[in-house]
Amino acid sequence: MPNQILDAHTSDPKVMGWMEGLPPPAAKRLHWAQADHMRFPTHRYAYSNMREFLPTARVSRGKGLVRELPMALRNDLDSVLFKTLDDGRSMTWAESFAANFTDAMLVLHKGVIVYERYFGVTRPDSTHIAFSVTKSFVGTLAEMLVTEGKLDPAAPVGDLIPELKRSGFADATLRQVLDMTTALDFSEEYTDPNSGIGAMSNALGLTPRAPGYAGPTDVYEFLPTIGKAGEHGERFTYRTCNTEVLGWLVARTEGKRLDTVLSERIWSPLGMEQDADFLIDSSGMPFAGGGLNPVLRDMARFGEMMRQNGTANGCQVVPSAALESIRAGASKEAFAKAGYTYLPDASYRSQWWIMPGNHGAFSARGIHGQAIYVDPVAEVTIARFASHPVAANGALDPTSLPAFRAIAEHLLKG
Amino acid sequence: MPNQILDAHTSDPKVMGWMEGLPPPAAKRLHWAQADHMRFPTHRYAYSNMREFLPTARVSRGKGLVRELPMALRNDLDSVLFKTLDDGRSMTWAESFAANFTDAMLVLHKGVIVYERYFGVTRPDSTHIAFSVTKSFVGTLAEMLVTEGKLDPAAPVGDLIPELKRSGFADATLRQVLDMTTALDFSEEYTDPNSGIGAMSNALGLTPRAPGYAGPTDVYEFLPTIGKAGEHGERFTYRTCNTEVLGWLVARTEGKRLDTVLSERIWSPLGMEQDADFLIDSSGMPFAGGGLNPVLRDMARFGEMMRQNGTANGCQVVPSAALESIRAGASKEAFAKAGYTYLPDASYRSQWWIMPGNHGAFSARGIHGQAIYVDPVAEVTIARFASHPVAANGALDPTSLPAFRAIAEHLLKG
Repeated sequence: MPNQILDAHTSDPKVMGWMEGLPPPAAKRLHWAQADHMRFPTHRYAYSNMREFLPTARVSRGKGLVRELPMALRNDLDSVLFKTLDDGRSMTWAESFAANFTDAMLVLHKGVIVYERYFGVTRPDSTHIAFSVTKSFVGTLAEMLVTEGKLDPAAPVGDLIPELKRSGFADATLRQVLDMTTALDFSEEYTDPNSGIGAMSNALGLTPRAPGYAGPTDVYEFLPTIGKAGEHGERFTYRTCNTEVLGWLVARTEGKRLDTVLSERIWSPLGMEQDADFLIDSSGMPFAGGGLNPVLRDMARFGEMMRQNGTANGCQVVPSAALESIRAGASKEAFAKAGYTYLPDASYRSQWWIMPGNHGAFSARGIHGQAIYVDPVAEVTIARFASHPVAANGALDPTSLPAFRAIAEHLLKG
Repeated sequence: MPNQILDAHTSDPKVMGWMEGLPPPAAKRLHWAQADHMRFPTHRYAYSNMREFLPTARVSRGKGLVRELPMALRNDLDSVLFKTLDDGRSMTWAESFAANFTDAMLVLHKGVIVYERYFGVTRPDSTHIAFSVTKSFVGTLAEMLVTEGKLDPAAPVGDLIPELKRSGFADATLRQVLDMTTALDFSEEYTDPNSGIGAMSNALGLTPRAPGYAGPTDVYEFLPTIGKAGEHGERFTYRTCNTEVLGWLVARTEGKRLDTVLSERIWSPLGMEQDADFLIDSSGMPFAGGGLNPVLRDMARFGEMMRQNGTANGCQVVPSAALESIRAGASKEAFAKAGYTYLPDASYRSQWWIMPGNHGAFSARGIHGQAIYVDPVAEVTIARFASHPVAANGALDPTSLPAFRAIAEHLLKG
């Protein structure tokens, strides 16, 4: 099937009929062994059904009451105009959904749902893979432990995790891991199965292994194999393996699995409306860099808590010091060296993207279009699931970042 | 490890430390490829964590309120005495837990929790595999569709499911499938990988396939391969494949996946407190004969609704006609031919075990000790999870059936 001719409508998983029928016909099946769950267009079905393809841990919401999000939908957002960052075309908010292969979109203004849409097979109660948005949850947990004095951001990773003493992480500080200024022999090239991220996916069991595979079979075995390349602390380089180290560190510090820590510290206190699914490896370790599958509203609840300085319904869920540390951002110079065309004057702090502009906006970003976008000045939180064909935010930024900004500006006006 | 010397205490998964540690040491790992999730003693950990080893669908409880079970715990049950069915020893209720490798036990009397215990790694919020207790959920759904006139119990399966026209099921009636009086070339020998149930587990992906496996890869492919052996309708023979046919039939009749039907018809209306996990094959079809993983209280809620003639908190969840059909039982003569030593004067109706005695008791039974036991006269509902080493109810019945009866009699007295 020539993927390049499929647009958001023709690749809609409902239109495609993936896995529909009792039984689904052969041509409509997804095959794990062919990694259909991880490639376009079949991934448009799989991203909303990951637990049906892979082992998952439950991130429990507990038994407390759901903290309902008030709703006052607005019709005026659809026609909000913006200019695309690449070719300067005019595009409306509503048009941007197809451009970005959007699966679900939610906008909170002052804590109220003003916009909510679901596409394809994604429903309000569908857990959807958040990919690297997961990192911002893990980074926030790590910052909480720093605030509580349980973790020293200046400590070298080799001291914190002895198993990494002979790896490239050994002399990197926790702060450098948090801010991804480590210098490692690990390439984040999603389309290359021989890249660092490809090897890690294989080690974690997220993608099918070749016959006779003899490599690492969990993240604990994989991380020590990563070498150093260059000097830590000099520049931002986005590498998912940093977050796996953080996940390990959070779990070991708390003496509990990462999914349990996330449940106790975030999912339960925020009054999430659904349990989340967390992809795990054969050791039971969640895929900290990209394996969380929440429902959209719960992802928005997390962003909204971050906007509200760590509070949710009157409770301080994340200490304000942790929030301040994140929102202060990191070195823009270090970030600029990474060459993100659409993110001038930005930085990356504690697994969050600190965005350009004078609104203090910050964002959690996952490949294929997963996003939390928080604009504190406009009092706006946006959450999006998507299943874009291309595994790079650069493919979506031109039609996403100006859209998010335009919506924030529009709501700021009233 | 010589399994035979491990008792319930020495095989306690907490004592064994399975999967504990960050990372868990090699000796404490469970390996899917070695089917550790399906054998003693490692299964004592896995049964409470199946979604971490296998793909699962979510059976959603929806967003309604939990229908809380009132609680008034009683201390007097532990010392209730009974005589074991095999050697006539005296044993207390409390002693029976170790004898049965019990993971969790709950007793409802008049709808009130009077007893609730959790052992090993099993907690109140742990989903635990229910094995063939699943069948009673599916049989109840099928009886509901019969009551609604959507399914004719006298119809031959070959007419209801054309794909089974050339299989051994073709000229069996739906009633014969419901009551397992079909005559099929399918052996239910759990310890033999070449048995019917072994081949089916392999087809469904529940157990690792041998290299070069070229057999069926889902239940839809597997069921048509089952031939006929003898004449339908003459005797009860317990064969899980019957329930897979029912699962297919329920799904096709409703035009929805079985997990969705179960969610809409049972999980949501009963006000269950947790979502359940349902093991699925590569086609997305739940393992109707044994793949449901509920929490204990939700399994008890289902039994309690059955005790209360299909009602729960004032709502008729299952039509009374369906209840009457089940509780009336089936042919005791057909059942007797199966030779269950510990179940004289019993029968099997619509995937429920209709128990001996004058209390009209009925039960859902799953290998390794999963059970719902309902005694309408004593107004008692018992729910149990277990991980007994032996995959046969005969191994547990001598220390379970008289224990359930003794508790019912004890509570009946006041």
